[in-house]
Amino acid sequence: MADLSPIKFYFDFTSPYGYLASERIEHIARTHQRDISWHPIVLGFIFKLTETKPLVDIPLKGDYAHRDIARSARQHQISLNMPEPFPIGTVAAARACLWARDTKPEILPELVHTLYRSYFVDGLDISSTDNVVRAAETTGVERQELLDALAGARVKELLKNEIELAVSAGVFGSPFIIIDDEPFWGHDRLEHVDKWLESGGW
Amino acid sequence: MADLSPIKFYFDFTSPYGYLASERIEHIARTHQRDISWHPIVLGFIFKLTETKPLVDIPLKGDYAHRDIARSARQHQISLNMPEPFPIGTVAAARACLWARDTKPEILPELVHTLYRSYFVDGLDISSTDNVVRAAETTGVERQELLDALAGARVKELLKNEIELAVSAGVFGSPFIIIDDEPFWGHDRLEHVDKWLESGGW
Repeated sequence: MADLSPIKFYFDFTSPYGYLASERIEHIARTHQRDISWHPIVLGFIFKLTETKPLVDIPLKGDYAHRDIARSARQHQISLNMPEPFPIGTVAAARACLWARDTKPEILPELVHTLYRSYFVDGLDISSTDNVVRAAETTGVERQELLDALAGARVKELLKNEIELAVSAGVFGSPFIIIDDEPFWGHDRLEHVDKWLESGGW
Repeated sequence: MADLSPIKFYFDFTSPYGYLASERIEHIARTHQRDISWHPIVLGFIFKLTETKPLVDIPLKGDYAHRDIARSARQHQISLNMPEPFPIGTVAAARACLWARDTKPEILPELVHTLYRSYFVDGLDISSTDNVVRAAETTGVERQELLDALAGARVKELLKNEIELAVSAGVFGSPFIIIDDEPFWGHDRLEHVDKWLESGGW
């Protein structure tokens, strides 16, 4: 899968549609012989730029969103239990992934899935560093090594850079996918993604 | 098609996704033996409640929206030329449709399509009463009769009621579809609509 540029997959760990897309993007990528580059971001910082609030916090839209999320999960037969609390801060989870990408990239996809499922299937509140580390341990991460990393300055810098790069690339939501400079926003655009990869634009 | 409740189709004439959905909803309705009740609304009034702006006016999202609209039209092979000016006020067009629904309901679907295509295919600025009447004449409407109606108090009242009822029903976007109390928001939810009609929920 070396010739084609990877699918850039931007996501926030508190985004239900990001979770749903994370469960489907690898199948799509494999079908079209693409790799995935995983980009954990924290939307709170970006929402300030786009004057946006989380969908569930907007009058009228909140109720609808919960219904649509459940329907979308059932449509694709993906396990999802809306967690409480929701939404949550995802700085620790994002930093853990960026540390993994930096130091042991081979575990990154599994770490992404583990953290997402811990929150959206098992209801583990991954806003806490303790719970992020607990979930990460199941992927073979050494507890103290991750705790040290999360306490250090490097992961802060990595996340700051990651978000700045995402904004420069035009990312404003989760999931957000970029393929050869073409942007796709939302779990509901995976059909477009698939069609785009098949035809190279249409 | 008398036994099943109609598909309630809410739309704003300046909404590109509303236009795209208007070109597809009748096929879906026929497939599932449903009628359609057409509900022209003016989103500007509703956006105040949801603290929303048109997608194209939001930083970062505007460029993306134009790209996604074009892609969505091509996906379904529907003619669409993004008009200028855009967005536009749609009070006159909505009132014309409510007048038709009130006095000659048999022409309503054709009037909806004619107005939408006049704007999104031919680029006619249907924010002006003159252009609304010009487009409506092609559906057999008598010019002076519609002009008189649009100048009267009744259509104002009809539109005011229509929007109030839409808000009570939880409508906050375009297109917005309600089937047996289940809400669906967006052209990108027609797949859900189709699945829902087929299975009665899933």
